[in-house]
Amino acid sequence: MTDDKNRVVIFDTTLRDGEQSPGATMTHAEKLEIAELLDDMGVDIIEAGFPIASEGDFRAVSEIAQRSRNAVICGLARAQLPDIDRCWEAVRNAAKPRIHTFIGTSPLHRAIPNLSQDEMAERIEQTVSHARNLCDNVQWSPMDATRTEWDYLCRVIEIAIKAGATTINIPDTVGYTAPRESADLIRRLIETVPGADEVVFATHCHNDLGMATANSLAAVEAGARQIECTINGLGERAGNTALEEVVMAMKVRNDIMPFTTGIDTKKIMHISRRVATVSGFPVQFNKAIVGKNAFAHESGIHQDGMLKNAETFEIMRPEDVGLAGTSLPLGKHSGRAALRAKLKELGVDVGDNQLKDIFVRFKDLADRKKEVFDDDILALVTATTEGDDALQLVNLKVVCGTGGPAEATLEMEINGEDMSAVSEGDGPVDATFKAIRMLHPNKARLQLYQVNAVTEGTDAQATVSVRLEEDGMIATGQSADTDTVVASAKAYIHALNRLIVRRGKTGKDVKEISYRDVT
Amino acid sequence: MTDDKNRVVIFDTTLRDGEQSPGATMTHAEKLEIAELLDDMGVDIIEAGFPIASEGDFRAVSEIAQRSRNAVICGLARAQLPDIDRCWEAVRNAAKPRIHTFIGTSPLHRAIPNLSQDEMAERIEQTVSHARNLCDNVQWSPMDATRTEWDYLCRVIEIAIKAGATTINIPDTVGYTAPRESADLIRRLIETVPGADEVVFATHCHNDLGMATANSLAAVEAGARQIECTINGLGERAGNTALEEVVMAMKVRNDIMPFTTGIDTKKIMHISRRVATVSGFPVQFNKAIVGKNAFAHESGIHQDGMLKNAETFEIMRPEDVGLAGTSLPLGKHSGRAALRAKLKELGVDVGDNQLKDIFVRFKDLADRKKEVFDDDILALVTATTEGDDALQLVNLKVVCGTGGPAEATLEMEINGEDMSAVSEGDGPVDATFKAIRMLHPNKARLQLYQVNAVTEGTDAQATVSVRLEEDGMIATGQSADTDTVVASAKAYIHALNRLIVRRGKTGKDVKEISYRDVT
Repeated sequence: MTDDKNRVVIFDTTLRDGEQSPGATMTHAEKLEIAELLDDMGVDIIEAGFPIASEGDFRAVSEIAQRSRNAVICGLARAQLPDIDRCWEAVRNAAKPRIHTFIGTSPLHRAIPNLSQDEMAERIEQTVSHARNLCDNVQWSPMDATRTEWDYLCRVIEIAIKAGATTINIPDTVGYTAPRESADLIRRLIETVPGADEVVFATHCHNDLGMATANSLAAVEAGARQIECTINGLGERAGNTALEEVVMAMKVRNDIMPFTTGIDTKKIMHISRRVATVSGFPVQFNKAIVGKNAFAHESGIHQDGMLKNAETFEIMRPEDVGLAGTSLPLGKHSGRAALRAKLKELGVDVGDNQLKDIFVRFKDLADRKKEVFDDDILALVTATTEGDDALQLVNLKVVCGTGGPAEATLEMEINGEDMSAVSEGDGPVDATFKAIRMLHPNKARLQLYQVNAVTEGTDAQATVSVRLEEDGMIATGQSADTDTVVASAKAYIHALNRLIVRRGKTGKDVKEISYRDVT
Repeated sequence: MTDDKNRVVIFDTTLRDGEQSPGATMTHAEKLEIAELLDDMGVDIIEAGFPIASEGDFRAVSEIAQRSRNAVICGLARAQLPDIDRCWEAVRNAAKPRIHTFIGTSPLHRAIPNLSQDEMAERIEQTVSHARNLCDNVQWSPMDATRTEWDYLCRVIEIAIKAGATTINIPDTVGYTAPRESADLIRRLIETVPGADEVVFATHCHNDLGMATANSLAAVEAGARQIECTINGLGERAGNTALEEVVMAMKVRNDIMPFTTGIDTKKIMHISRRVATVSGFPVQFNKAIVGKNAFAHESGIHQDGMLKNAETFEIMRPEDVGLAGTSLPLGKHSGRAALRAKLKELGVDVGDNQLKDIFVRFKDLADRKKEVFDDDILALVTATTEGDDALQLVNLKVVCGTGGPAEATLEMEINGEDMSAVSEGDGPVDATFKAIRMLHPNKARLQLYQVNAVTEGTDAQATVSVRLEEDGMIATGQSADTDTVVASAKAYIHALNRLIVRRGKTGKDVKEISYRDVT
């Protein structure tokens, strides 16, 4: 990457640790899109998945590896030879592949496979050597490092370095550490472990106590040169370190943290929105950097008359993270070229067929809405369906209100066959979902139902997110429409289509049953 | 409070700095409720508002002061004698009153009133002395302290201490600092400023770079003994330090941060939910401590078979923050006593009249929904109307779907008179809102429209939040109903009723035009 000693490598694990978050499952196409955006933004290393966990993960990592341009593509593997082989198979076609292998080294984690300290040390030597024989870029992680005994931690890191690891990652798996402790640990490891100066130390923090960003930066000040993070801090429980926070903190406070990254910060907002949409994990208004309210003057409130100088309350400019000044909105007279240009400006590359789909929906929306804003356009991209779905919405009519049960009259195409149903329900959404279940019986449980207006005004499009769970499998569906009830029906059908695809796969996902919450 | 040198005072500013957040405006009744919950939870000091900013703020601070039990009640005042007098008038009836006065001391902030260093120093001496003559508990803040010249900062703090300030608060107004810097500043101030050992130093951090929690804790390690914070980190831009994060971090990592607070952590979840509801600022799933996903095993995912030991991935127990084990849900046969008991268990105290209202809505809901969960009950509390509103929903019928424009037929009571309208619109919500505007013409702009399902399942109640803006005034409305369209109508009407109340006040809110974003 660079020889500059203050260059910090950004390792993004949105597609692995982020996607592992209950409910954040992404489709294959979404993973490819996010990987492309990460590569474009200047992320140094993309952890694309956990190849042995499922066929889907393997396929995603392989295809992301093949398409990669500048980023190193990394796959995760447990400390087992078949895992490492499978991982290598997936990443080998990348221009710059990396294998990341890990094992839990704390007393609590050693107890799970019931290995003694010596047995685990031997396993580490064997698996890291194996990985290094396949790939010259190998990362090794002692999971739950912050709760591992000091002497043993030093011992196993030394073994991993001798066996050929080129990056040593120190995960704070349970989000337990604090900045001073995080810095001390990295500093002492670098001072103590023989060979430490030949490898890169990485920090991987979780946000359970709200300190992931500060812990990661403290580790960098102590000598770590790789930060593992995710967009929006997506991840299990309270999530991982947020990429946008560590990157912007080093940029804004370069006076006290003189480190650089390769990130084009202007691309942060777009990728943040895309990850929020495809994961179904919305960003809270007061989230640092990417929340709706993060920049006061974006709030639509008239600025205090006294605030002559924006610096008075601003340490970053909204443009720095890609919150563009007002670019002209599109309208009903805009043509296909204007739409394509706008999509490009928004960082979305689409094929001709997808553009055709989006354009039809754009015209339809422009007829109904005075101005079509950037966010509307992005919602249209989300809403374009994936084509060969088993379930398709044909027609929906709903009557609801204060007077009694709502009634939905529904027409769907199911595997090419036209079917219809009428159902009463408790509100328009309940009636609609019941009608859908009449036509496609299923026992999926609704875990999440959420509606957000995409832009301001009552004629705004609504994006609906639906999360379903069936036998431990989770699927998320999204849709956007100016009619919230229609958007709800489409989002529910979208999620059902994903469940159908997942059900079709043989066996259970290894990921779902055994390897959640790694590192 | 206590003489224990490791006791950290928790100063909650949800009702002042939090409520100042664009769109988070709370009603008078909501402020009283939140203050009561804060007092119950063991918050040491409640900053209840900014008395001179508006009549509403004055009334809220006064009433919170009168009702206070254990907490100190604090009001905010600029460095002007009338501000301080007005503040004293509001807090004087508290058992333990405090006046908090501030002025911006950094070069950027000194330039606004165009005061020289000497002139500002004199103003500080004069205003702090005046406050101390009224009240023996006085807090003083140099706003934007982290960007104030070191020598001048020491000088003005010394003046404030000599003039009688008992607490010196060091605000990181723009969320600019980092943990080591935050600690250094507090440590050096305590070492340098004459009289520093006679006062309490406080830390007030903002989360613009995602480090507010770590910065606050670093300040405490360096000698600060008061943390200023808000529930859910509510506040302008990226918000303030989150109370739940600093409190739980000191509890979980008491080994390295041996500090205590008076907070009953079991009350955290309930107050977090109430603040999210009344402010209309939802908490993201992966928010530390209070996010839906913060405790992995609450996610409904089957636990990994290997995880015999909860500690493997858990550093806190959900019970510690008040995520109760499953208490029995209520059903249609539950009586009023059971409902009252459940409300009490949930930390909600209601009068007999309100209980009657809630009970009617509860029975109605129980008829339609198999199980009524805790969250449903809490939504019912939110949904009970405030009685004498100008606008009331009588009847609504909506027809919508894929076939064309939606149509809403609406009946409302406006100042006691029955009126009706029919409107077409782009989707059921647009049609409904247009019909409401036909009956109550207004130029309020819809800033936010959001729907969340309260509990799981398609028969869940939906809570709708609506935020309106008119001539710089902002009002938020919420409502819950199993019919999302009905809930939307009620939330919109709720917000309009609040705007009507605000419009009725003479003059503009000082707060809205000049004193946003203080400290």
